[in-house]
Amino acid sequence: MTRGRIITLLTDFGLADAYVGIMKGVVLGITPEVTAVDISHLVPPQDVSSAAFLLLTAYRYFPEDAIHLAVVDPGVGTSRRAVALGTEHGLFVGPDNGIFSDVLLDQGAVENDGQLGPDVEAVELANESFRLHPVSSTFHGRDVFAPAAAHLARGVRLQQLGPRLESLRLLAVPAPVRRGGALEGAIRYIDRFGNAISNISRHDLPPEAWVEAGGRRFQGFSTSYQEGDLVAIMGSAGFLELAVRNGSAADVLGLRVGDPVTVRSG
Amino acid sequence: MTRGRIITLLTDFGLADAYVGIMKGVVLGITPEVTAVDISHLVPPQDVSSAAFLLLTAYRYFPEDAIHLAVVDPGVGTSRRAVALGTEHGLFVGPDNGIFSDVLLDQGAVENDGQLGPDVEAVELANESFRLHPVSSTFHGRDVFAPAAAHLARGVRLQQLGPRLESLRLLAVPAPVRRGGALEGAIRYIDRFGNAISNISRHDLPPEAWVEAGGRRFQGFSTSYQEGDLVAIMGSAGFLELAVRNGSAADVLGLRVGDPVTVRSG
Amino acid sequence: MTRGRIITLLTDFGLADAYVGIMKGVVLGITPEVTAVDISHLVPPQDVSSAAFLLLTAYRYFPEDAIHLAVVDPGVGTSRRAVALGTEHGLFVGPDNGIFSDVLLDQGAVENDGQLGPDVEAVELANESFRLHPVSSTFHGRDVFAPAAAHLARGVRLQQLGPRLESLRLLAVPAPVRRGGALEGAIRYIDRFGNAISNISRHDLPPEAWVEAGGRRFQGFSTSYQEGDLVAIMGSAGFLELAVRNGSAADVLGLRVGDPVTVRSG
Repeated sequence: MTRGRIITLLTDFGLADAYVGIMKGVVLGITPEVTAVDISHLVPPQDVSSAAFLLLTAYRYFPEDAIHLAVVDPGVGTSRRAVALGTEHGLFVGPDNGIFSDVLLDQGAVENDGQLGPDVEAVELANESFRLHPVSSTFHGRDVFAPAAAHLARGVRLQQLGPRLESLRLLAVPAPVRRGGALEGAIRYIDRFGNAISNISRHDLPPEAWVEAGGRRFQGFSTSYQEGDLVAIMGSAGFLELAVRNGSAADVLGLRVGDPVTVRSG
Repeated sequence: MTRGRIITLLTDFGLADAYVGIMKGVVLGITPEVTAVDISHLVPPQDVSSAAFLLLTAYRYFPEDAIHLAVVDPGVGTSRRAVALGTEHGLFVGPDNGIFSDVLLDQGAVENDGQLGPDVEAVELANESFRLHPVSSTFHGRDVFAPAAAHLARGVRLQQLGPRLESLRLLAVPAPVRRGGALEGAIRYIDRFGNAISNISRHDLPPEAWVEAGGRRFQGFSTSYQEGDLVAIMGSAGFLELAVRNGSAADVLGLRVGDPVTVRSG
Repeated sequence: MTRGRIITLLTDFGLADAYVGIMKGVVLGITPEVTAVDISHLVPPQDVSSAAFLLLTAYRYFPEDAIHLAVVDPGVGTSRRAVALGTEHGLFVGPDNGIFSDVLLDQGAVENDGQLGPDVEAVELANESFRLHPVSSTFHGRDVFAPAAAHLARGVRLQQLGPRLESLRLLAVPAPVRRGGALEGAIRYIDRFGNAISNISRHDLPPEAWVEAGGRRFQGFSTSYQEGDLVAIMGSAGFLELAVRNGSAADVLGLRVGDPVTVRSG
C-alpha cells in the first residue's frame, strides 16, 4: 500500500497567513493521495537565491519521484514563465526565475547559459486544463503551481502540462574562484543557529587548508561545534561553514550573505 | 482508497509551544484516518477577527467535507459556547465568538443578527462523550474542539454532539459603506509581505474607480505587484489590496488594520 | 486500514531552514507509512530543558506506539550517546543529554541517579545499518535519529538498534522544595501568550493555598484566564501557572524561567 507521492513545499509565504494551507487544500482537492512536506516557508521575501540553496540541501533526501513545489516568485503576474522539470532526482514545479539553478547545476543537468542537458526535461505550464480558474494575478502558487504539482502526483505526464523548453533562467549563483594559491568564496546562507554557510564545497578544499573569514583565521577544520569557541567545519550540506559554540557565528563575526570566505593552503 | 477526511487547524497558539502538536495527537488518537492541514497558528493572540478573515480566504479551497477546526478563544473557561457547524461548504468546529462570521456571511447562511438560515446546521458541543476528561479550564482546543472534529471525521453526525442552535454570535465584521459617490472601507488584514488587504471586494468596485489610502491616491488597478512602486490590486482573496513592489505597503504607507480605504469613481 | 505509526518531531532547528523537512524526507524514504506530527521546532537553540518540558506536556496525548523524535543536541559530534527508549507510553529517540528526563520521571521509570527501572528499555544507537552514510558530524537528526525512528516505525525492534543501556543522563530538573509551611518552586516555561508555567503540579498543592510570584500575591486559584486581570490558574499541563487576561504575565510581572514561585497555605 502506498501513501502516494511526496510533494514538498518551499515558499516565502510565511506561516502567519493562510497561503500555504490554501496551496495544500488545492493539492488535496485534486489528489488526496499525497504526503505534503514543508521545506520552509520563511525564505526571506523575494529571496530566490536562498530558496535555491535550501532546495539544494534538501532534495537528495527525498525519494526520486518526489515533486518539489518551490514558489518564491517576485515576478508573479508578469511574463516570467511557470515551469515544471523532470530530473533524475525529483520533479520540480515553480517559476522560471532561477530557483532551480543549484539543483540543476548539482545534477550536471544544465550549462552555464541555461541550456538544458539530456537528463532533464522541462515544460512551460501553459495548459489551461491544469490550472484553477480564474487565475489570479498575484497567487500562482494556488492557481498554477499547486495544481500542476498535484496533477503530476496523480499521474499526469510532464508533457501534458505544456510545451517543452530547451533552456531555463539561471541565477548568477556565486561560485568560488581560484586566485593565486587561494580559493575565494562567499557566505551563501546563514541558518537559525547563526552558522554561516559558504559556497565552498568539500570537493573544492585542498588538504592542509586554513580559512579566513570575518577578519579571523581558522586553522584546520573541526568535526564538532563543541571543538572550539569559533570553528570552521564541513557542514551537513557539504559546504564549509563557520560556527560558534552554543552561539551565532554570524553575530560574533559580523558575517552576512555575500561576505568573502577565503581558503588557503600550505 | 481514501486518505480520510481533511481537518484544517487555525489557532493563535503559535508554533513555539506544543499546543498544536497536542491537538493533532488527540485527533489521531481518535481517528488515524485524517489528513491535518495547518491554516495558521500565528494569528495574533486573541485576534478573532483576523482568524475569521483567514478562514474566509481559505475554506473554499478545501473539499466540501473538510472539517475546519478554528480555535482563537480568549473566552476559554467562561460561559461562551463551544459549537460545530455543518454548511454547504465545510464543517466548522470552534468557540461561538464570531470566528465563523465571515464564512457564514460569505455563504449567505446567516442574518446580520446571527439567526441561522436553512443551509447551515449548528450544535452546541454539549455531549460529554465526545470530550477528553477531565476537561481543563484553559485548553479546550485539546479537550473539547479537537475531539469533536475527530469524531466528526470518523463519521459521528453533527446532531450527536449536542443540541441544535438557532443563532450564533457574529463579529461586528466591518463592511464598506457607500457615502455620496464614494465607497468607504477599511484595511482588514496585513499579510507577511506587508500587502494591506481591505474589506472592499471585487463586486463592490465601480468601473473606472480610483483608490485613496494612506494619504495616497491610486489611479486604476494593477494586475501585478511589479507594475509600479505602489499599486492598488485585486488580491487573490477577491479583495482590493495595496502593495509595494518588493516591499511592504503597510510600512511605506503606515497602514494598520482598521485604517480607511476609499474608492471613488468618475 | 492503518495510516502507520506516528512519529512526532521536537527540535530547536527552527522553521526557516530546511533541516526539519530533510528529516521528514529521510523518514519517508525509509518508510512511507508514517504520519509525522510536529511538536515544536522553535525550542530556543540548545535549550534541552525546555524541550524536555514540552515533550512532557505532549507525549500522553499520542497513542502508546507513537515514536517521539527529539533532537535538541548541542553535543552533536561529541561523545554523547545517541539513544532510543521503549516505555509504557511511547518510544523515544534522541541524544542522551537529559531531553527525556521529564518523560521518564513522569512515568516513574527512572531513579534520580539515572538508573532505569524495569518498565523502560533503552539502547544506544550503535548499529551502523540503521544510519545514513556518511554520518555527518553536525546533523545527527538527519543521519542517525531520523533513520532510527523510521526503522522503528517500520517494525525494527529496539534491540536491533544497538546494545542495551542501564542508565541515562538526567537533567537537573528543578523540583519544588518544601521549606517550613511553604512550597518553593520556580518558573519552568513561558508560553506564547506569556503564561508563566511553574514546576508546581496539581498534586503538590495544599488546599486553601495562595501564591507569591513576581512580587505579587495571588489569593486562590482561578478557573479561567478571564477571571481577573492577573490570575493563578491550574494550567492545561497540570502545573500552576500565572496569567494575565488578554496579555502576558511574563511581561507584566517581569517573570523569566527560573524565577521563584512560592505556595503558602493557611
